[in-house]
Amino acid sequence: MLIHLSSWPEIDARLNAGQPLSRTVVVPIGSNEQHGPTGLLGTDWLCPEIIAHAAEQADETLTVAPTFNIGMAQHHLAFAGTISLRPSTFMAAITDWVSSLSRHGFERIYFLNGHGGNVATIEATFSEIYAEWSFVEEQPPFVLKLRNWWDLPGVHGLCSSIFPTGHGSHATPSEIAVTQAAYPDRIKTADYSPRIAPNGPIRDALDYRARFPDGRIGSDPAQASPEKGQRIIDAAVPALLKDVADFAGEVRP
Amino acid sequence: MLIHLSSWPEIDARLNAGQPLSRTVVVPIGSNEQHGPTGLLGTDWLCPEIIAHAAEQADETLTVAPTFNIGMAQHHLAFAGTISLRPSTFMAAITDWVSSLSRHGFERIYFLNGHGGNVATIEATFSEIYAEWSFVEEQPPFVLKLRNWWDLPGVHGLCSSIFPTGHGSHATPSEIAVTQAAYPDRIKTADYSPRIAPNGPIRDALDYRARFPDGRIGSDPAQASPEKGQRIIDAAVPALLKDVADFAGEVRP
Amino acid sequence: MLIHLSSWPEIDARLNAGQPLSRTVVVPIGSNEQHGPTGLLGTDWLCPEIIAHAAEQADETLTVAPTFNIGMAQHHLAFAGTISLRPSTFMAAITDWVSSLSRHGFERIYFLNGHGGNVATIEATFSEIYAEWSFVEEQPPFVLKLRNWWDLPGVHGLCSSIFPTGHGSHATPSEIAVTQAAYPDRIKTADYSPRIAPNGPIRDALDYRARFPDGRIGSDPAQASPEKGQRIIDAAVPALLKDVADFAGEVRP
Amino acid sequence: MLIHLSSWPEIDARLNAGQPLSRTVVVPIGSNEQHGPTGLLGTDWLCPEIIAHAAEQADETLTVAPTFNIGMAQHHLAFAGTISLRPSTFMAAITDWVSSLSRHGFERIYFLNGHGGNVATIEATFSEIYAEWSFVEEQPPFVLKLRNWWDLPGVHGLCSSIFPTGHGSHATPSEIAVTQAAYPDRIKTADYSPRIAPNGPIRDALDYRARFPDGRIGSDPAQASPEKGQRIIDAAVPALLKDVADFAGEVRP
Amino acid sequence: MLIHLSSWPEIDARLNAGQPLSRTVVVPIGSNEQHGPTGLLGTDWLCPEIIAHAAEQADETLTVAPTFNIGMAQHHLAFAGTISLRPSTFMAAITDWVSSLSRHGFERIYFLNGHGGNVATIEATFSEIYAEWSFVEEQPPFVLKLRNWWDLPGVHGLCSSIFPTGHGSHATPSEIAVTQAAYPDRIKTADYSPRIAPNGPIRDALDYRARFPDGRIGSDPAQASPEKGQRIIDAAVPALLKDVADFAGEVRP
Amino acid sequence: MLIHLSSWPEIDARLNAGQPLSRTVVVPIGSNEQHGPTGLLGTDWLCPEIIAHAAEQADETLTVAPTFNIGMAQHHLAFAGTISLRPSTFMAAITDWVSSLSRHGFERIYFLNGHGGNVATIEATFSEIYAEWSFVEEQPPFVLKLRNWWDLPGVHGLCSSIFPTGHGSHATPSEIAVTQAAYPDRIKTADYSPRIAPNGPIRDALDYRARFPDGRIGSDPAQASPEKGQRIIDAAVPALLKDVADFAGEVRP
Repeated sequence: MLIHLSSWPEIDARLNAGQPLSRTVVVPIGSNEQHGPTGLLGTDWLCPEIIAHAAEQADETLTVAPTFNIGMAQHHLAFAGTISLRPSTFMAAITDWVSSLSRHGFERIYFLNGHGGNVATIEATFSEIYAEWSFVEEQPPFVLKLRNWWDLPGVHGLCSSIFPTGHGSHATPSEIAVTQAAYPDRIKTADYSPRIAPNGPIRDALDYRARFPDGRIGSDPAQASPEKGQRIIDAAVPALLKDVADFAGEVRP
Repeated sequence: MLIHLSSWPEIDARLNAGQPLSRTVVVPIGSNEQHGPTGLLGTDWLCPEIIAHAAEQADETLTVAPTFNIGMAQHHLAFAGTISLRPSTFMAAITDWVSSLSRHGFERIYFLNGHGGNVATIEATFSEIYAEWSFVEEQPPFVLKLRNWWDLPGVHGLCSSIFPTGHGSHATPSEIAVTQAAYPDRIKTADYSPRIAPNGPIRDALDYRARFPDGRIGSDPAQASPEKGQRIIDAAVPALLKDVADFAGEVRP
Repeated sequence: MLIHLSSWPEIDARLNAGQPLSRTVVVPIGSNEQHGPTGLLGTDWLCPEIIAHAAEQADETLTVAPTFNIGMAQHHLAFAGTISLRPSTFMAAITDWVSSLSRHGFERIYFLNGHGGNVATIEATFSEIYAEWSFVEEQPPFVLKLRNWWDLPGVHGLCSSIFPTGHGSHATPSEIAVTQAAYPDRIKTADYSPRIAPNGPIRDALDYRARFPDGRIGSDPAQASPEKGQRIIDAAVPALLKDVADFAGEVRP
Repeated sequence: MLIHLSSWPEIDARLNAGQPLSRTVVVPIGSNEQHGPTGLLGTDWLCPEIIAHAAEQADETLTVAPTFNIGMAQHHLAFAGTISLRPSTFMAAITDWVSSLSRHGFERIYFLNGHGGNVATIEATFSEIYAEWSFVEEQPPFVLKLRNWWDLPGVHGLCSSIFPTGHGSHATPSEIAVTQAAYPDRIKTADYSPRIAPNGPIRDALDYRARFPDGRIGSDPAQASPEKGQRIIDAAVPALLKDVADFAGEVRP
Repeated sequence: MLIHLSSWPEIDARLNAGQPLSRTVVVPIGSNEQHGPTGLLGTDWLCPEIIAHAAEQADETLTVAPTFNIGMAQHHLAFAGTISLRPSTFMAAITDWVSSLSRHGFERIYFLNGHGGNVATIEATFSEIYAEWSFVEEQPPFVLKLRNWWDLPGVHGLCSSIFPTGHGSHATPSEIAVTQAAYPDRIKTADYSPRIAPNGPIRDALDYRARFPDGRIGSDPAQASPEKGQRIIDAAVPALLKDVADFAGEVRP
Repeated sequence: MLIHLSSWPEIDARLNAGQPLSRTVVVPIGSNEQHGPTGLLGTDWLCPEIIAHAAEQADETLTVAPTFNIGMAQHHLAFAGTISLRPSTFMAAITDWVSSLSRHGFERIYFLNGHGGNVATIEATFSEIYAEWSFVEEQPPFVLKLRNWWDLPGVHGLCSSIFPTGHGSHATPSEIAVTQAAYPDRIKTADYSPRIAPNGPIRDALDYRARFPDGRIGSDPAQASPEKGQRIIDAAVPALLKDVADFAGEVRP
């Protein structure tokens, strides 16, 4: 069930359905930021959306929230089209999503993340949210979990086997392949060099652009294809369903 | 051009294209909130997205940002599936979108809004953003504009003529018709009564639910149909293009 | 009863008096900002104060708080003497007023507003305040209401009939007349042109000053007189008393 | 010149008048809080307003801002009618007043304070404001000064001589006398005991009420009279004018 | 008991020990800032740490928290090595320390302060913390107290008698002597003039440096010696133990 | 050079010494939190302090700031003695440290971290700080680096070789050994079981205590000894000096 294409009575019924996943919700979360010379700016929020929606197609008892499409992309701001929240803003927004979803009775909130640069702030936010309860000796009525889609069991290994060289860490062929599978009419090509982009530390936006002139880090995205993307999606869907089910079934200590 | 389905070099080229709309961007903005017994929870962000994307189809020189899909829906929180930002969070997030888009050279930022409940906070945010400049006698490098889609020239009149009674102000047949045109396989029906919902003041969430038990205000959404929705979209598209062009062409005093 | 000219035991007794208005309080709220070549900088907080104090003279069971005299006047900052809060500051301050008044048992808090530019932020603040309760399924112990003095029943019509042309929307003859009635020794005159000021959009402070060089929007304030001001006050007083009584008497759903 | 009863061209002219006080402004600042069984809730903002307005009557070259009437009164919240800002809100609001006044060219901003409980937060705010400049090796374009009216040269000694016993530190006969001089028709009486109230530490609101049941600290306010209040005002006015002139004339190092 | 050199079971046992001081904790708090040509940058946090640790040596039932070593030193920022929190940050941090210590059951939290410039912000913070409770008619589960080490009974008099001239208010011989007693191998000398530094108001950092070129205010720190410092410590230790015991034994009203 | 035991002229001279490390500063940063049945509450801030101070002993051209001793320990709050900042507070405080150090001319700020739970928030803070510059196309005048002491080259391998089993991730024998080397008179023992603590996810404080009843995660800290701790320190010191030198010598792109 996709929340945004459902009515409130449908969500209400779901929450009270007494199924294993009834009170668990998946939030696709990512970023809108440059993805090298050929990648879509939306790559990092499209990937978790594509995988979560495919999982919901496979198992309708999965509840999927709207996509949280703008994250922490400070270091990409020197490339046109990037939109970033400051970490403090990102934290406030995630907090409000959690407050809203918890209000309705969702007890397990699972963030399926598509952007490595989001991880630190999302984890900091979980602590910020929990702190309100920890300072007063209470347990929150919800449990939060963050999972990067590439860390779903089996997915990372598959990506490595498909792209043994030039996978890199930004504008990777695997993430670009996933978007190609879903948006085949938006595939872009470009001459770029070197074939495999350099690596290095990530700092402010101008520093980033100087180190990584076309935006890629360590990657050769031309290896991507829609077929490869579909293979990744096909592996990610059951892994996500299993991971969410495990999370929903965890007994709180 | 849809930013999220473009690469950064494409946006870069657009910004430097020297066309009338090159440095203007449209941000569809709405809310994810209950829309009565039959409306989609995503109605308020889907409508401006549907209209903006249709306009981009009609005139590719229009640049459209990703959709800002969660807004200020505090009063709807007693209905499952609603997700709301606090006004202070909403303000911070809009501010960061503006900072990001301005960073790239967008000089006119046009928010196409789909939720009446967003208006006050968006306007307050504009003042918050401008204040930074006004306190120090500087002019910001951008101009901001808010337009509700139903206030586009000609659209409100059309809606009134299609739905002379029972239009109301929440879960209106016009907004539901727009989503039906775009998502015909998600049309929902329900028995509800009274046929036309009551009116009243809007306050906190429990007060709202007590006054408006199924979520509607003053509306009879069963009058919606995909065909009526398409008529509204067809009227909104040229009105939006004209309105954005006028905004882009405004000379700053 | 004016709170600031009362002792705490008097307010305590009022709160426990069991009268219809005992637990309702009126907060005059406005702004200190330029009002054209002849208007007082205090116009927007003086008008609601004048009307509220006159109403309290007419019916001592009305409880009136001190005047909240600085509001959201970002767009007027290019004119000397304007003092503005950022919207975020304004929100925090209103929140603390509400927390304080609610602490004592005031259950209905009625803001009588004198500045159109305050409306968006005040409404956003109400949502911010309510959100704390809406996120946790509780009803706040108070109800908030915003009323612009010119929107009191009958007042707008009267102003239109007295000033059929050149009323405009800033530095209006009606608001200036109200201050003239109360401060007849502070009436100022000036040669200004055009007689009726231009209209246009409101943005940042330098933009405002460029569009509206003497500060007026659409108005011809020289039409004001103390007599006309007194007529407006005389109409507003009973309208306010009735409006507050209706608000105090509303049954919560 | 009282800003709120002036037009913007008048303030503009004042700023450019080249007089010793042209670019100095006095902000009366206080609190609305319980003042014992007989004191007015507005005492702490009325006193600096009364003295500043009297000084402006004596020397029209003094520029006086509207009164900042709500301050930090957390500890008085257990008494009806008290309105308090949290320190963080108070800081934000003072900051915006300073930003606004500085924007117009006021280079010396003098806060004439009427509430001891405001002192810590006002001083912290000055540091908060200065920090923005100190972190980047710049000097702010304004200088800030805080003066309690009872600390004006000669005033404290006069108060001590008029009220050798039972002056105390809250709901003092001197502050109540000042309001009696200005509002003789609002003089209140009450039987209270002990004649001189106890002393003790100031903490949260319930602790305060338990220690000081009628609100007074160390004072016997029944000693106040309008005549005594007038003597205090008469001493404070020249002291204020001198103190402001000294401040305006200070050479920055 | 020093918290940072204890294990959690030891602190747990202390809290439940039922001794007079079991639920009282001392927090040494200061600042890292310039202390003239010879003083250590850490002087203001070292002094309360030295005294509190010596007191814990004398009476192990005293519980001492880690030292809060960075405070409000905005005005010293023009001198290398100074580290300052903005007052708003300082307030947030103190609040979290209090929340943490209160969570464990500490009911009396005693801040032993080493920096006059901290006082305003610490007091404002206490009000900010209390406000949360005062707005809702509840009493906090803790009591907060601020004591400057030089205000401990007997200490100020001793310092005055040891340094009858040139004590001053910043980089005083007494505070420097205390650090000399504890860090005799870090004693520094310098030629400075005038022998006794000037006095004056404290404002922003550049203003401060212009008024007080070597950082001292009113002091002649060369009078310090380790022996004098030890005398001060020896006087401060029993005074602190007595003061904390009195605070712990206070009955809440 | 330890900043807190230096005078401001000494730091000033250092900044202008023109040595390779003159404008680089090391900030030991950690947390005060439970470390199992035998570990010191200060372990996580003592370890980086011990290593950084030992490095400064070895090479006096290293500049070391005071220790940032309270970090993000929300999940440990159910154990007495833990003191935690909320992530938002931690971010504000780190920001102010950076602003202060940068103000004096430190261009490379190296955080030597002792607490894994700090990492997410510190990284988020770096982005928050950089964002101010990235939004406006400027490069900050400083570069920030985070290094956990156990990630210094060679250190992790050494720890693994000393403690091949039962190292775990909280209250590890390696960190406890480091504190034992520095504070041999504070070594504590306890009977605990199981010998090697369980592993699991980290969430709110009550969840943590339920999963890890004595506070340890995966560790057997009884393996620690002062001698082993000294070996770790001896390995960490040159690794730190090399790592800082590399950082100081990095050419900005």
